[in-house]
Amino acid sequence: MGHHIRLVERLPMTVTEFQRHIEKIYFTRDSERGLSGTFMWFVEEVGELATALREGTDQEIREEIADVFAWLSTLASIKGIEMDEAIQKYATGCPACEAVPCQCGAKE
Amino acid sequence: MGHHIRLVERLPMTVTEFQRHIEKIYFTRDSERGLSGTFMWFVEEVGELATALREGTDQEIREEIADVFAWLSTLASIKGIEMDEAIQKYATGCPACEAVPCQCGAKE
Repeated sequence: MGHHIRLVERLPMTVTEFQRHIEKIYFTRDSERGLSGTFMWFVEEVGELATALREGTDQEIREEIADVFAWLSTLASIKGIEMDEAIQKYATGCPACEAVPCQCGAKE
Repeated sequence: MGHHIRLVERLPMTVTEFQRHIEKIYFTRDSERGLSGTFMWFVEEVGELATALREGTDQEIREEIADVFAWLSTLASIKGIEMDEAIQKYATGCPACEAVPCQCGAKE
């Protein structure tokens, strides 16, 4: 087990730590597959999330949410985007009205 | 600006902090809309991400990644799931082979 990264021992995990961790597990293969193929895998996980939300157990839903998050993180990595920087869009609240809670009802 | 949560001032952000932040901005409305309607919004953002990946600027891709992450977080919140707990699935590496990097090539 020496080469395993034991994230369980160092919660709370930051968004950046998660993105780096998924890269360590999968990035070489994901980057070789390329963007379009990786997007297809991502959407397949979105479909599995839909199935879990419709008829799955809480554990199944939890796992599919993790998978979608992992593939989203991979898409960001392939494009050289930091998830942590991306979410700064929401730093001051709703990007449309800047309020917390949102007062405008606009689309996120 | 006094009521704004200035996440820009407290990086690095944890996955849990992001989930709580999105809840503060949107949860009342999202929970009233319910799961199915929220899932449709989530998928709409996935579609916008596809468009951005095909033909958008880096900034547009960055924004769509943030939006998909925000809606995924909302789906988790509606189901009472902690994103931070969900991603423990990946704590010891690939969930299938437990290696870092993945040695099995199995589906995530």
